[in-house]
Amino acid sequence: MSSSENAHYVTAIRWNGDAATGILELLDQRLLPTEETWIALHTADATADAIRDMVVRGAPAIGLTAAYGVVLAAQELGVNLSLAALEPSMATLNASRPTAVNLHWALERMRALFASGATVTIDTLFAEAEAIRLEDIAANRRMGDFGAALLPENCTILTHCNTGSLATAGYGTALGVIRSAFAEGKLKQVFADETRPYLQGARLTMWELMKDNIPSVLVSDNMAAYLMQQGEVQAVIVGADRIAANGDTANKIGTYGLAVLARHHGIPFYVAAPMSTVDMQTNDGSEIPIEERSTEEVVLVRETRIAPEGALARHPAFDVTPGELITAIITERGVVKPPYRTSLGALASE
Amino acid sequence: MSSSENAHYVTAIRWNGDAATGILELLDQRLLPTEETWIALHTADATADAIRDMVVRGAPAIGLTAAYGVVLAAQELGVNLSLAALEPSMATLNASRPTAVNLHWALERMRALFASGATVTIDTLFAEAEAIRLEDIAANRRMGDFGAALLPENCTILTHCNTGSLATAGYGTALGVIRSAFAEGKLKQVFADETRPYLQGARLTMWELMKDNIPSVLVSDNMAAYLMQQGEVQAVIVGADRIAANGDTANKIGTYGLAVLARHHGIPFYVAAPMSTVDMQTNDGSEIPIEERSTEEVVLVRETRIAPEGALARHPAFDVTPGELITAIITERGVVKPPYRTSLGALASE
Repeated sequence: MSSSENAHYVTAIRWNGDAATGILELLDQRLLPTEETWIALHTADATADAIRDMVVRGAPAIGLTAAYGVVLAAQELGVNLSLAALEPSMATLNASRPTAVNLHWALERMRALFASGATVTIDTLFAEAEAIRLEDIAANRRMGDFGAALLPENCTILTHCNTGSLATAGYGTALGVIRSAFAEGKLKQVFADETRPYLQGARLTMWELMKDNIPSVLVSDNMAAYLMQQGEVQAVIVGADRIAANGDTANKIGTYGLAVLARHHGIPFYVAAPMSTVDMQTNDGSEIPIEERSTEEVVLVRETRIAPEGALARHPAFDVTPGELITAIITERGVVKPPYRTSLGALASE
Repeated sequence: MSSSENAHYVTAIRWNGDAATGILELLDQRLLPTEETWIALHTADATADAIRDMVVRGAPAIGLTAAYGVVLAAQELGVNLSLAALEPSMATLNASRPTAVNLHWALERMRALFASGATVTIDTLFAEAEAIRLEDIAANRRMGDFGAALLPENCTILTHCNTGSLATAGYGTALGVIRSAFAEGKLKQVFADETRPYLQGARLTMWELMKDNIPSVLVSDNMAAYLMQQGEVQAVIVGADRIAANGDTANKIGTYGLAVLARHHGIPFYVAAPMSTVDMQTNDGSEIPIEERSTEEVVLVRETRIAPEGALARHPAFDVTPGELITAIITERGVVKPPYRTSLGALASE
């Protein structure tokens, strides 16, 4: 048994009931850490809205949520269940966020059930969503073990955004590596970038880390360079929303800057992501659509306005880190290094 | 007449009345942009408190404020005015913030009046504070012209923190260069980093730029790398709190990271600061004290808590950018390039 199997973590996506009559419940991540409120979803459309409005976020988490959304669509169809009848709901779910490929990947898995020729029932669909959930947790645990092995003793890790249980089916990608490193006694502390504008680091990562008693310190995003300069960071570990065939990695805005800074300071920069985030159909980063979200999310911190009325703002929600700035990509199938077109390609064809 | 002389700008530090009975009034920058409230100061101690609490901030602005604080101390002393009697108030003012050298520099100027042997009256002290004010504005206008000459046509500039009229006696350092470039028709737009945690960019720079109708767009600090990668930034211009003899420059936290990113993208990185910010007595950046401010300023955005109760945080308020990452330093005496120990040294001995 690996050291990580006893690690604690929260669950933010849960199915309540059986396949035919159950509902999807999401921990409303917009209200964390102030309130722990669950939202009940009864339809695929409501699920798509929840993804778009960021009740749930994180690439693996929105993939799993969309899979459950297909089950809800099947409930709505009842005896009229068919792939053709599901397509409008799947299209709505697929369009809810553009950058993370896991959403598309999960829907393709659900769609593929129909390709076998066997009869697809609501139980088949539910079983597939459950398989996605369990496989994601298992993948995260393997990534945790692979990633922790890369780290030195007594290390301080800087991470960005939230890549934990809240961003996945459970345990986490980059935060899974951090959990495993902590379980193995290798972790001194974590610096959590607050991750403006949506503050996933301050609100979600700090909340998860504090629940697990993992030593954690919040920093503003613009403090990372200073901490690296002072020798206070031994590794940067982030998650991913989509990894192209050449290793170019789309992730939360601010990731690219961290990769440049890590390179400048000679600090390893790791990406931890399941193979469901690797998209061999995307040739390089230039083909990844970058979501531009509302600028209200930049000028307002919850209800607090931080800029003058009428101020213009930008809000690219993701950026692309070139593969050559990534020391290694940690997946559940192993750790790969540049050149990624070869190394990732080999993993993907396993 | 240079193009910059007609540019508009606000004033945030004003003396109300004559030398003997007047008071110091500060625009409360903590409440901008929501409220424009002036605070009346009657004593040197209250002035030191206002500097510490960031009613006023910005290296040249706190220097000027401290000079007026000495006039208030002289009012309190009345007929007992002497250098020895002023010293406790000057020590209190000097201790109010550690990083910006302008505070020390302005107090030294006030102290130097007593060295001449002539009788120093409250009028002498007030005249010196007024001289500091007018010289700072004139220096900013000259920096504006020197800096604008460095910029290409139709350029987009990224800046950090607030270096405008609010940070100086008027017009601004880096923001003065931006004002001059705008007056000369060379400026396409400004990206203003919001500048966490205190949000000087979002609250103050956007407020100043919008008042002057200068095209300006707010961005989260962690978007700078993405904008550079996309080719949307032609120059980075920042101010300074202290410039060491070798060009190492202390400035608002986040500046160092921008300098690394600018170098990576081949974008010029300029520091604009008056000679009062250059401290030839500081050999290099390692000798500059970096203020650690309250972590409450990190976990709270005004009254909005962004992290769980009990979350630990860091708050280095400044960082040091090595001189070798600075393309040029723009002063009122001219523009200097590396090696700064030679070039700055020549300017300082003029």
